[in-house]
Amino acid sequence: MKQSKLFTQAIKTLPKDEDSYNAQILIQAGFIDKIGAGIYNLLPLGKIVIDKISSIIREEMNKVDGQEILMSALSPKDVWLKTNRWESFDALFKLKGSDKRDYALGASHEEIVVPILKKYINSYKDLPLSVYQIQTKFRNEKRAKAGLIRGREFLMKDMYSFHENSQDLDNYYDKVKDAYFQIFDRLNLKADTYLTYASGGDFSKFSHEFQTVCQSGEDLIYVCSKCQVAINQEIIEEQKVCPVCEKSEFKQKKAVEVANIFKLGTRFSEPFKLSYSDSEGQIKPVIMGCYGIGISRLMATIVENSHDEKGIIWPESVAPFKVHLISIGQNEKAQKLYDHLKQLQIDVLYDDRDMSAGNKFSEADLIACPYRLVVSEKTIEKDLIEVKKRADKESKLISQEEVLKLLK
Amino acid sequence: MKQSKLFTQAIKTLPKDEDSYNAQILIQAGFIDKIGAGIYNLLPLGKIVIDKISSIIREEMNKVDGQEILMSALSPKDVWLKTNRWESFDALFKLKGSDKRDYALGASHEEIVVPILKKYINSYKDLPLSVYQIQTKFRNEKRAKAGLIRGREFLMKDMYSFHENSQDLDNYYDKVKDAYFQIFDRLNLKADTYLTYASGGDFSKFSHEFQTVCQSGEDLIYVCSKCQVAINQEIIEEQKVCPVCEKSEFKQKKAVEVANIFKLGTRFSEPFKLSYSDSEGQIKPVIMGCYGIGISRLMATIVENSHDEKGIIWPESVAPFKVHLISIGQNEKAQKLYDHLKQLQIDVLYDDRDMSAGNKFSEADLIACPYRLVVSEKTIEKDLIEVKKRADKESKLISQEEVLKLLK
Repeated sequence: MKQSKLFTQAIKTLPKDEDSYNAQILIQAGFIDKIGAGIYNLLPLGKIVIDKISSIIREEMNKVDGQEILMSALSPKDVWLKTNRWESFDALFKLKGSDKRDYALGASHEEIVVPILKKYINSYKDLPLSVYQIQTKFRNEKRAKAGLIRGREFLMKDMYSFHENSQDLDNYYDKVKDAYFQIFDRLNLKADTYLTYASGGDFSKFSHEFQTVCQSGEDLIYVCSKCQVAINQEIIEEQKVCPVCEKSEFKQKKAVEVANIFKLGTRFSEPFKLSYSDSEGQIKPVIMGCYGIGISRLMATIVENSHDEKGIIWPESVAPFKVHLISIGQNEKAQKLYDHLKQLQIDVLYDDRDMSAGNKFSEADLIACPYRLVVSEKTIEKDLIEVKKRADKESKLISQEEVLKLLK
Repeated sequence: MKQSKLFTQAIKTLPKDEDSYNAQILIQAGFIDKIGAGIYNLLPLGKIVIDKISSIIREEMNKVDGQEILMSALSPKDVWLKTNRWESFDALFKLKGSDKRDYALGASHEEIVVPILKKYINSYKDLPLSVYQIQTKFRNEKRAKAGLIRGREFLMKDMYSFHENSQDLDNYYDKVKDAYFQIFDRLNLKADTYLTYASGGDFSKFSHEFQTVCQSGEDLIYVCSKCQVAINQEIIEEQKVCPVCEKSEFKQKKAVEVANIFKLGTRFSEPFKLSYSDSEGQIKPVIMGCYGIGISRLMATIVENSHDEKGIIWPESVAPFKVHLISIGQNEKAQKLYDHLKQLQIDVLYDDRDMSAGNKFSEADLIACPYRLVVSEKTIEKDLIEVKKRADKESKLISQEEVLKLLK
């Protein structure tokens, strides 16, 4: 894409009405825009990053046989009454339809997905199965804070699985756990992310959060000094030992809950009478699991954990473009290189604007594509191209062939 | 995809609480699910169709230099007060935040997009530009009806363009008009869709609707017997002549408004003081256009206009899969053909289930992939494959090479 065709540009100073680094820098670099407390718009660069994160999640969910659907945000009051969550669900947005009925805006979708699956699950032959969606969620937070980490409207992937029995749920639950770590690995967050034991409800002793250690995290986790797991605040108050090794040496860390998985058991299948007939014709309740992951929150966490004094350092997997090609002065060579990179299907942002080199460089640092290529009179003279990786301090001059080899 | 991995299956009878054909058949075939009046969930097959329609629209909007963004659904009351639409906008969903403020759910996004662009438009050098989104819209309709044609929650593409003057808007407006016909062409709706003159507001004599002639349409249009254009109810009451040829012979037809385009002029730039400085340094208001297209409504209109007594006939561009491969009896040959088609990256649904041929065939007619391939003992004996196009009455037996040639 030509940068002259991009309507956003970097803002000189950090916005004043934001106290979180992630929202400040994403606004400054032109990825997002703030419309109200905890409500953000995705601008073109932000949309690309969110789409890349979503694609990675979609690929991993498809690998564990998740079937993608898209449920409504509006849901009628009666389904929430059935599960006793109309009053108890934290931060449910409620609204009145002109048909005089009450609706909630989806903050989670157990109440929607179970009635759908009830129409399709009859026999043990229909199980197991798993459905997911990538969708905007709404939460009426009293105090939206931490930028994209806790918003009133945000993008989430939520998956729900359906099983004959708890062993089958257990197996699938472990598969999704692995898929989640695969996602964090691809987002370059794996090293900072701990499987964190949390309370499990009626069906299971524990549920699991995925907590990414982060200075601006709202949660406190306790990382076992022996195992690579952590426990959350509630668990440490209850039992004070690691559920894996039973030692009680922990390091307290601030963290962001980027995902969670939960064995629901029959918590939602019972109120909706979601059952199946087993191979002997006996009617049994369906056993469920649920698996959430915060997409806008992941973008914010990447930004919080991967930046320097100049701005964000995107991992290549989610960077808005792989390459930022900068032309200093009007020159044909940059245009030709742009055409060539596009032909090779390399993802490139081409700064073709009439603007000072200094401004172009500082904006490139903010947008933070992994590779910055500069073509100027100086480089043309030597028949070389200046290459700098976003995370590196130094640039180097190399030939066009070497550039192409590097970007392959 | 293997059909044994798809959780939906065709329902034997049409749902009773639906009076529109599009929703009835889409529910029966397992594309959508109804949760309340005018509120639907997209099931896996419906999600694929909607994604394909969205991709076509996205491609055509990118061709006219539209930049994709994603705005929030929640918007604060004050932006709606500025344009006097808090009270006057038809069917705005309103809700209270726990911060005690009032919010609306986006039914249209002029009030959101203008404040964003105000941050980025300063000079004539920043113009023209155009941004769009594909997003869930909410409308608090008194009576949701006609299935996906008039829902309370639905998917829409809305684009907004920004110009120095009305000539530039006029040129762009015509480009988008062409892009829209390109979209209808790719969706196989062009022959039924009329550019329809509608009232234009303060800035322009006319706006334009794109009306697709359809038995279950809610609108009446008047097609000029000489030109390939139509006028809507309001215009015929006002002027009684065709705006193009000035003749007054019309044919009245029922139609669905699948899209509309509107020259907004300064209707929204003025209240938000969205202006630019021209080449002589004079401050002028930005001139705007807006361009909507209903994505879920397009799916419904395709279904209404393209079906037979057995169900939907999808155009190949949006069919959930290009090929429906059916195995009668367990056989290795079908599995091999499936693997081969996947290798060739042909979009294929493989009915590998243990079920009667009759059930498989009637479900295939409902799902309506353009090509149905059958592999049975009978066809294996002859070393041939049975091929039937969804819209054809007769099938034929041809060799595997011929099948591959056909599907290329």
